[in-house]
Amino acid sequence: MKRKTYNFLYRNKRFVKFIYGLIVLNIVALVLESYKELREPYGFIFDAIEVVSVIIFTVEYFLRIWVADINKRMKKSRFVFLVSPMGIIDLLAILPFYLPLIFTMDLRVVRILRLLRLLRIFKLGRYSKSLKSIRSVFKETKADLSIAFFVGFILMILSSTLMYYIEGEAQPEKFATIGHSFWWAIATLTTVGYGDVYPITAMGKLLSAVITLIGIGFIALPTGIISSAFIEKIKRKKRKRKRRKITCTCPNCGTTIKV
Amino acid sequence: MKRKTYNFLYRNKRFVKFIYGLIVLNIVALVLESYKELREPYGFIFDAIEVVSVIIFTVEYFLRIWVADINKRMKKSRFVFLVSPMGIIDLLAILPFYLPLIFTMDLRVVRILRLLRLLRIFKLGRYSKSLKSIRSVFKETKADLSIAFFVGFILMILSSTLMYYIEGEAQPEKFATIGHSFWWAIATLTTVGYGDVYPITAMGKLLSAVITLIGIGFIALPTGIISSAFIEKIKRKKRKRKRRKITCTCPNCGTTIKV
Amino acid sequence: MKRKTYNFLYRNKRFVKFIYGLIVLNIVALVLESYKELREPYGFIFDAIEVVSVIIFTVEYFLRIWVADINKRMKKSRFVFLVSPMGIIDLLAILPFYLPLIFTMDLRVVRILRLLRLLRIFKLGRYSKSLKSIRSVFKETKADLSIAFFVGFILMILSSTLMYYIEGEAQPEKFATIGHSFWWAIATLTTVGYGDVYPITAMGKLLSAVITLIGIGFIALPTGIISSAFIEKIKRKKRKRKRRKITCTCPNCGTTIKV
Amino acid sequence: MKRKTYNFLYRNKRFVKFIYGLIVLNIVALVLESYKELREPYGFIFDAIEVVSVIIFTVEYFLRIWVADINKRMKKSRFVFLVSPMGIIDLLAILPFYLPLIFTMDLRVVRILRLLRLLRIFKLGRYSKSLKSIRSVFKETKADLSIAFFVGFILMILSSTLMYYIEGEAQPEKFATIGHSFWWAIATLTTVGYGDVYPITAMGKLLSAVITLIGIGFIALPTGIISSAFIEKIKRKKRKRKRRKITCTCPNCGTTIKV
Repeated sequence: MKRKTYNFLYRNKRFVKFIYGLIVLNIVALVLESYKELREPYGFIFDAIEVVSVIIFTVEYFLRIWVADINKRMKKSRFVFLVSPMGIIDLLAILPFYLPLIFTMDLRVVRILRLLRLLRIFKLGRYSKSLKSIRSVFKETKADLSIAFFVGFILMILSSTLMYYIEGEAQPEKFATIGHSFWWAIATLTTVGYGDVYPITAMGKLLSAVITLIGIGFIALPTGIISSAFIEKIKRKKRKRKRRKITCTCPNCGTTIKV
Repeated sequence: MKRKTYNFLYRNKRFVKFIYGLIVLNIVALVLESYKELREPYGFIFDAIEVVSVIIFTVEYFLRIWVADINKRMKKSRFVFLVSPMGIIDLLAILPFYLPLIFTMDLRVVRILRLLRLLRIFKLGRYSKSLKSIRSVFKETKADLSIAFFVGFILMILSSTLMYYIEGEAQPEKFATIGHSFWWAIATLTTVGYGDVYPITAMGKLLSAVITLIGIGFIALPTGIISSAFIEKIKRKKRKRKRRKITCTCPNCGTTIKV
Repeated sequence: MKRKTYNFLYRNKRFVKFIYGLIVLNIVALVLESYKELREPYGFIFDAIEVVSVIIFTVEYFLRIWVADINKRMKKSRFVFLVSPMGIIDLLAILPFYLPLIFTMDLRVVRILRLLRLLRIFKLGRYSKSLKSIRSVFKETKADLSIAFFVGFILMILSSTLMYYIEGEAQPEKFATIGHSFWWAIATLTTVGYGDVYPITAMGKLLSAVITLIGIGFIALPTGIISSAFIEKIKRKKRKRKRRKITCTCPNCGTTIKV
Repeated sequence: MKRKTYNFLYRNKRFVKFIYGLIVLNIVALVLESYKELREPYGFIFDAIEVVSVIIFTVEYFLRIWVADINKRMKKSRFVFLVSPMGIIDLLAILPFYLPLIFTMDLRVVRILRLLRLLRIFKLGRYSKSLKSIRSVFKETKADLSIAFFVGFILMILSSTLMYYIEGEAQPEKFATIGHSFWWAIATLTTVGYGDVYPITAMGKLLSAVITLIGIGFIALPTGIISSAFIEKIKRKKRKRKRRKITCTCPNCGTTIKV
């Protein structure tokens, strides 16, 4: 019986698709609910989707706890499942619904709790094999990427402090603090350039020009790091396939040579 | 006779160049027609180009149907041609002209039909060999690219929902719904940054800064994927040339084998 | 005598540095002259620089013509030098000065002629060996890059025509013609996003979002192409160096084996 | 005693962490001090942090001078330490505190001196091994990157001069000088696009479109260069590991040699 439930939860393709569909429906409902013209007349539909979803997710959660002791990936332990990332996400995906029923809560807290429904999107990652390739690329380049972002961060601190001193007098509102200046640095170094904050003094423009040119390197760095990891990945695949293949057999005497 | 027509349609370089020229003329006319100061005095020229083009494209279309039963690429079947992408594009390139002549139509529908003329641009792809290299790169990286865009999409949903909750109160018009917020997420994550929507609260700016930095990775990912595919492509070319040179000699009897 | 002049013009490092310095001085003067507060009091300095420069460049030009018949790169022909790119640039760098002295000219024409002085910047490329590496990368990727830009151009035509039809009614001024719409397409697909033109209707925003996401691929494509060419270049260098080195000599009997 | 101090300064992990923590505290204080609402009530805390930090950094500086004559990296010379980059940064990190105590100074000079505290951030780089990998990538690609930036710079000069002539009449304030025009060129070629300056005439928009498309190549170039360097780096790592495995056997006497 427990074995059957386990197979149903983890191997039944229709069930997996059903859960995926339900998650997508939840996200769509969350987005549509933000439209006043839909929320007011059709609010009961959104409520219905929420109640039904939470019931299904709750049953699913308890079934997963029940079968955890025969799940090898969870080391056959219910506790391991409960504190695993997927277990916590499963819990956080339903808890926000029950808490306001048990405790009396401030409306603002309820609002934030409702936002936690968004975490259901991470349930999509449970069986996904295709995400692995991207995850492995980020894993391999973690060290280089984090240094690149650290260098970028120091660059931002330096440029926003300088800009605060240079532009602070000319635009006392937009460059009021180094924090304000940091907002400019982010928009500039990532080349987003909203256009809400930009230097107007000659010195400020000169600094901005230099920072922007360096910013190209700041973008080129992660791109280069990630590119190299992808190229590595493709090569490894090829090498695996090759290793088995490149042997050649002499047609005269049958000797096999590995090239 | 049919064979001659087939060769004329598919192999005659002058005819191919003529059709290409006609398509370019059509696109130029479409663009120029949007200028009121040209449309009003020279409208008859645009009409003449349209009538002549449609007549030529119609004749071409029916000739292609006629010769489809000796066209190997169409499996010598007229039906296969009719439902092939190029067959459908050929039809859609002329249909918008005839429909309003047959049926009485709402002016708005006619307007959309006129827009279908734009599809003629895809007729340019019929004989193009040079597009193949780029198409093959996209084909190979399809799996990785679609995951990258899927991850990007989830990131956008997450960030636009969060932004809607954070900035919704401070800018009730610009972040009115999650849809509005999504427009901000697109502009930010792709680093376009029009500057029509941006956060003004401290919390919103903080979230935006984090999202933007992640956005660099979002751009780096497809770049890395496409780069690696191009590098693979170059290597394969080289390997083909090399392959003729790799020979190995049997140490027992001296026979040389090409691998 | 002619041989000495040739060596002076093409091999004397001090002369080359002097000409480079003069070109940089000319560009600096051109930039500074655009400042009214400098042009008015110090106009005579700018005029002096111009006169002296033109005299030197004129003498240099005629000397180059004179020695062209012993210059192997010019096939020992003065005519070949006169019609070579460098010969034409040399001429265009001095002509704008003399024309208004000979003919009476409209002030606007003189203004454009003065702009031709900017061409002097290309004289910098005469001896530059370091530019070769970048030029060779662009040369190798020319075919792929031009297809990438052609695809990008078709994308722009398509999206700007669609946008013209979708946004034309809501923003009749900003999307007045397909030309106006094209300006939006350029700013969006290259992720510049000035923010002077952007869609305001829901349909327009949806199209813009799709176009922008495709735009990331549009940027990723040339980056990938150029990256792969640089990687190829580095490899070739390595291979050259390797070829000579990898032989190993047996310490016992002195036999040399190429690996 | 001196040896012990040396080991404490350069090898004691707790001391290194303490100095790092102090630097981070200094940067955080510098940022927070820019907020008026924090500076006014808690000014004494910022002053205390400054005084304590400077005392510690001063002691550290003199100890480093003292032990420099047994520091091999400094060639056992105190003078070498004093003029080394790290020695100068150490000095500049404390000097701004002492100067106003000794000399009477203009308030504006004091303000700039206070800004020099920012240099303390570079003290973070003293022991960092992880930065080496990024530094080595920039070192290897220095030649290519500097040519790329030189070409970019010439492109900017050309486009800003042209834009000044084309847009100068239509927007006499925004394109007042070539310097103003250069600000536009920076924002456009790096795809930041603040939106404070953009062409409004048809000719200006056309030029801008061409420049922007070239700008994509300008960004693709450094990205490609840096990507190729990262790929090289990964390969070299692999090759090192491999090198132990490549052995070749002499066909005459059977001796095996490691290459």
